[in-house]
Amino acid sequence: MDVSPLAPARFPDLPEIAGVTFASVAAGVKYQGRTDVMLALMVPGTSIAGVFTTSATRSAPVLDCQAKLGGDPSQAAAILVNSGNSNAFTGKNGINAVEAITSTVTSITGIPQSRVFTSSTGVIGEPLAHDRITAKIAELHGAQTPDGIAEAAKAIMTTDTFAKGASAEVMVNGEPVKIAGIAKGSGMIAPDMATMLVYIFTVGLIGQDALQSLISSSNAKTFNCITVDSDTSTSDTLIAAATGASGVDVTDNADFATALHRVMEDLAHLVVRDGEGATKFVTINVIGAQDDADAHKVALSIANSPLVKTAIAGEDANWGRVVMAVGKSGAAADRDKLSIRFGDITVAENGWRAPDYSEDEASAYMKNEELTVGVDLGIGSGESTVWTCDLTHGYITINADYRS
Amino acid sequence: MDVSPLAPARFPDLPEIAGVTFASVAAGVKYQGRTDVMLALMVPGTSIAGVFTTSATRSAPVLDCQAKLGGDPSQAAAILVNSGNSNAFTGKNGINAVEAITSTVTSITGIPQSRVFTSSTGVIGEPLAHDRITAKIAELHGAQTPDGIAEAAKAIMTTDTFAKGASAEVMVNGEPVKIAGIAKGSGMIAPDMATMLVYIFTVGLIGQDALQSLISSSNAKTFNCITVDSDTSTSDTLIAAATGASGVDVTDNADFATALHRVMEDLAHLVVRDGEGATKFVTINVIGAQDDADAHKVALSIANSPLVKTAIAGEDANWGRVVMAVGKSGAAADRDKLSIRFGDITVAENGWRAPDYSEDEASAYMKNEELTVGVDLGIGSGESTVWTCDLTHGYITINADYRS
Repeated sequence: MDVSPLAPARFPDLPEIAGVTFASVAAGVKYQGRTDVMLALMVPGTSIAGVFTTSATRSAPVLDCQAKLGGDPSQAAAILVNSGNSNAFTGKNGINAVEAITSTVTSITGIPQSRVFTSSTGVIGEPLAHDRITAKIAELHGAQTPDGIAEAAKAIMTTDTFAKGASAEVMVNGEPVKIAGIAKGSGMIAPDMATMLVYIFTVGLIGQDALQSLISSSNAKTFNCITVDSDTSTSDTLIAAATGASGVDVTDNADFATALHRVMEDLAHLVVRDGEGATKFVTINVIGAQDDADAHKVALSIANSPLVKTAIAGEDANWGRVVMAVGKSGAAADRDKLSIRFGDITVAENGWRAPDYSEDEASAYMKNEELTVGVDLGIGSGESTVWTCDLTHGYITINADYRS
Repeated sequence: MDVSPLAPARFPDLPEIAGVTFASVAAGVKYQGRTDVMLALMVPGTSIAGVFTTSATRSAPVLDCQAKLGGDPSQAAAILVNSGNSNAFTGKNGINAVEAITSTVTSITGIPQSRVFTSSTGVIGEPLAHDRITAKIAELHGAQTPDGIAEAAKAIMTTDTFAKGASAEVMVNGEPVKIAGIAKGSGMIAPDMATMLVYIFTVGLIGQDALQSLISSSNAKTFNCITVDSDTSTSDTLIAAATGASGVDVTDNADFATALHRVMEDLAHLVVRDGEGATKFVTINVIGAQDDADAHKVALSIANSPLVKTAIAGEDANWGRVVMAVGKSGAAADRDKLSIRFGDITVAENGWRAPDYSEDEASAYMKNEELTVGVDLGIGSGESTVWTCDLTHGYITINADYRS
């Protein structure tokens, strides 16, 4: 499959995070000729926090991770991820697979099972061949290296066309604190819960509760504000690990919170940039709503509308479809106070087409690869920003022909 | 554009409805070389009822129709519909256009303006060239004929690939009572409100309140149970007219109610069969939910899922995506009590793949043109049936390339 036209030129140089090592391996879970399992190990004292899908049919690994949050941070920790099979809707088999994998990690690494987190991503409903994974854990343990994060980012890909990473460095009390994260995801991406697989590592020293609070609040404005296709995965997982290896206490530090937020936002945007079939990166800005929740409803209604997304794919300045999406959203709206902008161009205001609207000007704008749709509801101060991509033939080809 | 592969072999022979006449004309509102305006006239004594979109950005004609429901049934009535322009989000211009059209109908036909209903369908946000319509009203008045309903069904089409009609005849107190209806719609089709343009006529004698009650309740199980693309039109309108010309009182008659319901269901299915790009007609049956509302949520979540719809387009028995759609629906669900069927084939039960599941058997079933996806949540007695179509390259082509 071709790399998304919205992909960055290259994978970024991610910093090593003291206290974390990685290894990846080709276990042949489903894919051939590529790596598909990664194992990250973290030193004792690492705080772990996570957010997960709220799907009623979430996978065995997600349920296991949720049960393990809040475990003893004085113990070392491990994260093992496989691609090719999501181990979702696999019943007792699924629970057994998680048990087999986590107990093998424990017996080989000595890390208590209560601190071994696993994720699985890929097809739903097929039994996971967990013996292929457990057979490789000793090799993964032996190959651990501090600079293995880029390879790990590749091992967790499914329909992704490029590996996704982001990092930040922030000064706290005069000391540099590094953050690095990786993500996978390009389809079955919808908001209102943690989406996809995301792993973020930092050397910052911070308690688990404080770390959880930071990622939960940033999640609401980053991963919960992206959508590719309105479909929500059964496996979505974000885990953040703070090793504390820097010795720098980042608790309640605003600069650290901002840097962490930026890494999460960067990774969320990368997921949209790899949206299945995407050719446009679209920012939906809604202001003037009755409240933030209504603004979010309107933004998502636009971002998930197949008619808006196909118009964008066709570079058609069809703002009437934006009006439609506002109207169906269920949010409070007054047609005659609504205005709509494409970039800096006001296309509609006061309930009808802008007096100086130029179809040529709007059409020219739609040819950009990055587009902003602005909506002002004009009735309050609620606002929301959501990121999405267009809906193209590529999405149909990927999902009608490929069992992901 | 090619006719949908799901289209009926031909337009049905609709019966004449005593008390109603029709005419259609090519007014050149937008389209060239085809009819685009139809006028139906009904005798004094006709009961009129309607259901309309609940969009917050609904069109000027919708607002005008809603204000006129409950008008004096002892007066004659008229319905004028144009295609090519929806007169939605057209501000003061839109209101003026409705006033110009309805007042012209009144001056030419003598029917009071309070009984002149109009609908407009087509592009959103462009001023309606209402003078092209008013210039043709005298011609439409002069050409009225009792057998013009088939031509009227053609005049109201936009992206439709075939005209849609349905009829029924029911015996009430030993007397035959006829019902005939027409509809247009193939994109921007979503449930939870009356969708598209639908006009139903009957010779039955029934008061406006009783007629309204019948169509509101049937609407909840017919037009509100179909979806093509989850997008909801700003113009959706269903108007039913009972002329009473048969002299047969159908009030509180169960057979009449059933026949009317069947006509509405037939028309709703025809809209799905003309879903943009559709190649499969899909019935989603959900049972065992906590209540009917939850069942409806699950059915719509499946019917609107791009991943489910593309899998169906690809004839892929990807029931894992059905699990995903159940999980994201927000309805109460217990993964381990969930079972899923494709036709008569149980593909998943008790939280995992059915023990005797055969991929070959399931794949063979997916090649059918009409498919049923059955979901039993296993936790209650709530149920819902929703009809939809697949999501194909055809939908992208129509909506990325055509300003509808």
